[in-house]
Amino acid sequence: MYSPRPAVLTASLTPLDQDLNIDSDHLARHVQWLLRRGASGVVLMGTTGEANSFSASERMMALEAVVDSGVDPEKLIVGAGCCALKDTVDLTRNALRAGVHRILVLPPFYYKQVSEDGLFAAYDYLLQSVGSDEIRVYFYHFPKMSAIPIPVALVERLIQAYPGSIAGFKDSSGDWAHISAMIRHFRELEVFAGSEQFLLGTLEAGGAGCISATANVTSQLAAELLHKWKTPEAKMLQARLYNIRSAVEQWPMIPALKALMQELTQQGNWANLRPPLKALNPREVSACIQAYQAASGDNHRKSEY
Amino acid sequence: MYSPRPAVLTASLTPLDQDLNIDSDHLARHVQWLLRRGASGVVLMGTTGEANSFSASERMMALEAVVDSGVDPEKLIVGAGCCALKDTVDLTRNALRAGVHRILVLPPFYYKQVSEDGLFAAYDYLLQSVGSDEIRVYFYHFPKMSAIPIPVALVERLIQAYPGSIAGFKDSSGDWAHISAMIRHFRELEVFAGSEQFLLGTLEAGGAGCISATANVTSQLAAELLHKWKTPEAKMLQARLYNIRSAVEQWPMIPALKALMQELTQQGNWANLRPPLKALNPREVSACIQAYQAASGDNHRKSEY
Repeated sequence: MYSPRPAVLTASLTPLDQDLNIDSDHLARHVQWLLRRGASGVVLMGTTGEANSFSASERMMALEAVVDSGVDPEKLIVGAGCCALKDTVDLTRNALRAGVHRILVLPPFYYKQVSEDGLFAAYDYLLQSVGSDEIRVYFYHFPKMSAIPIPVALVERLIQAYPGSIAGFKDSSGDWAHISAMIRHFRELEVFAGSEQFLLGTLEAGGAGCISATANVTSQLAAELLHKWKTPEAKMLQARLYNIRSAVEQWPMIPALKALMQELTQQGNWANLRPPLKALNPREVSACIQAYQAASGDNHRKSEY
Repeated sequence: MYSPRPAVLTASLTPLDQDLNIDSDHLARHVQWLLRRGASGVVLMGTTGEANSFSASERMMALEAVVDSGVDPEKLIVGAGCCALKDTVDLTRNALRAGVHRILVLPPFYYKQVSEDGLFAAYDYLLQSVGSDEIRVYFYHFPKMSAIPIPVALVERLIQAYPGSIAGFKDSSGDWAHISAMIRHFRELEVFAGSEQFLLGTLEAGGAGCISATANVTSQLAAELLHKWKTPEAKMLQARLYNIRSAVEQWPMIPALKALMQELTQQGNWANLRPPLKALNPREVSACIQAYQAASGDNHRKSEY
């Protein structure tokens, strides 16, 4: 049975310097800012964080910088799923060493149409190799990006095999029918929707909350909904979150969010992205900022950043 | 204008030990065997070689072992395209240090529906970072696996930007209309079909030959066709190659080829695969061997392995 308190976690963007390397100091500041603005926690090195565009050692150094800056590792979930299982194992061990127990694990995603047995073997390899009782695995279901869905039967087999280690499911299908089915099916897991557009529905259905990219800019509002989800205000707050997400989704998500962060903070080099992602052009940036401001009513720069 | 002699390159399998680590000695023996059996060259760490299932350091160690065993690095093409550009750069530099100049480069393949500009930036980052006149880049077009096609316009832009460094195109679309269009379009590049099923057509159209997974078991026959492609025997040889490939393709390609190598050589631990790939079960192995033998007429174990 699901027990932790519902949560809204932000899938953090990863700020880069001019050479397109991770700006770890800026990343640490950004994580602290997200937590101050109401994020229940932060996912480092998810899709939003351009995780798979960095080598394992770059990812490890970034996590270490964030934890060294004083962020409580219990507030973090770390993305670790790579194509190469050795990398997945190394990233997981590194997270555990840093005090982070919650690991978001994409399936290996190069080979397509792989068998459930093959996916089981991949997660089994990870759990055997890491060999720690402290690991808490969150499955990362994002078929539009990874092209590898997480089958229900796979999760069931892994819960059987590693009952204390399988903790949750991030459902980035974008499909409420699927998300709500996962919440009903996996009562013993924390099921997070991959977008705050489904936050109220997820909470009402008994899910764990959401892990969201757009929460980089909506964390305050999402936190307010989390606080008031049983009140009459909830529907209005959810509608606002829905509208903001819909506004931002008109552009490629990660470049759009980086453009918004540049506007909101006027700091850093938010326009830098690792290829194959590319920054929005100036016209797109203006349109995106306008659409965001219109949807959110938020046209104040964040002087406290 | 295309100048090198037509070639049949084998996309080498990667033998693993019981712990699912690369058996480098066995890999070196396998590459030598392929070259003895008529392969014009060998691609290490392509899709067939489970490349993306290994970390960058595992891939580098494997290449070093092969070259240290005495294989002429000019006979090799090395796969280096990763999601993380730092890994792609490291693998490419490592190949150049080992004397291998021909690099097969998948586009970064985690993010989907990326822009041509983003893909250009990825290859540009590689070429700028490596900064060597000795690199010869081969684009790896395999949309069914990577989900990231290589657009014609992208290749044209990179030829313009790096005229001496863009050498070829591996077309694993499995679509003759596409392959033949690429041969016609890119007269200045070596265009390889991704299967020896298209070998004769590719040679007749002026293409460079093929880079093939099934050439792990068909290298002798493919070499014979390469030798005789202008003779009356060519059609019969092509038909045999076609039938062998079609027979093997009834099973997942890499596990099927590993099962066949186990049968042919009776050596090593060919049944080992890195998850998410899984070995065929015993019934599938038997059926696959039977289908291969029926198609090839080859039921002799390879005592010289």
